[in-house]
Amino acid sequence: MKPDFTKGLLPAVVIEEGTKDVLMLAYMNEEAYEKTVETKMTWFYSRSRRSLWNKGETSGHIQRVKSLYLDCDQDSIMVVVQQAGVACHTGEKSCFYNKVL
Amino acid sequence: MKPDFTKGLLPAVVIEEGTKDVLMLAYMNEEAYEKTVETKMTWFYSRSRRSLWNKGETSGHIQRVKSLYLDCDQDSIMVVVQQAGVACHTGEKSCFYNKVL
Repeated sequence: MKPDFTKGLLPAVVIEEGTKDVLMLAYMNEEAYEKTVETKMTWFYSRSRRSLWNKGETSGHIQRVKSLYLDCDQDSIMVVVQQAGVACHTGEKSCFYNKVL
Repeated sequence: MKPDFTKGLLPAVVIEEGTKDVLMLAYMNEEAYEKTVETKMTWFYSRSRRSLWNKGETSGHIQRVKSLYLDCDQDSIMVVVQQAGVACHTGEKSCFYNKVL
């Protein structure tokens, strides 16, 4: 089973193995997805930079892929990872640190 | 703090309170977001039907919003819910039941 990239970039939710904390959400194109599956490290597509990026390549905060799931429509991806350091560029463990409710 | 809807529709990850299971991913526009915050039930924007929908309105599988977070860029939303019944229209608890890795 493969993601349906005819729909364009697909959102990938990254959660931490064990704690199940939601760490971040980023986008994958087909190349990023295939590199993620092959290398067992997370790769994403940056919409602002219009290029692939390998999470942790500069920060060292790599994500080792432990498992990966697609949703019922094959247009959303869930990646379960072991996170080195923190996921967010702000220094927070998770990007979802802004509590509204 | 508000989501940045100048970026268009924003992905909303829905997780279950307690188990922290990722139940589904859907999209919100500003109206869906405001209805979600106001009613404490989840509302989304359907890209295929081009209209708002209230999760559980027809199935009864409603989601009561317990908390809500924005990510560091305010362009992704995480909603923590109490799920009535199952989240997925297939009858699975979570939409992320297709294990690839």
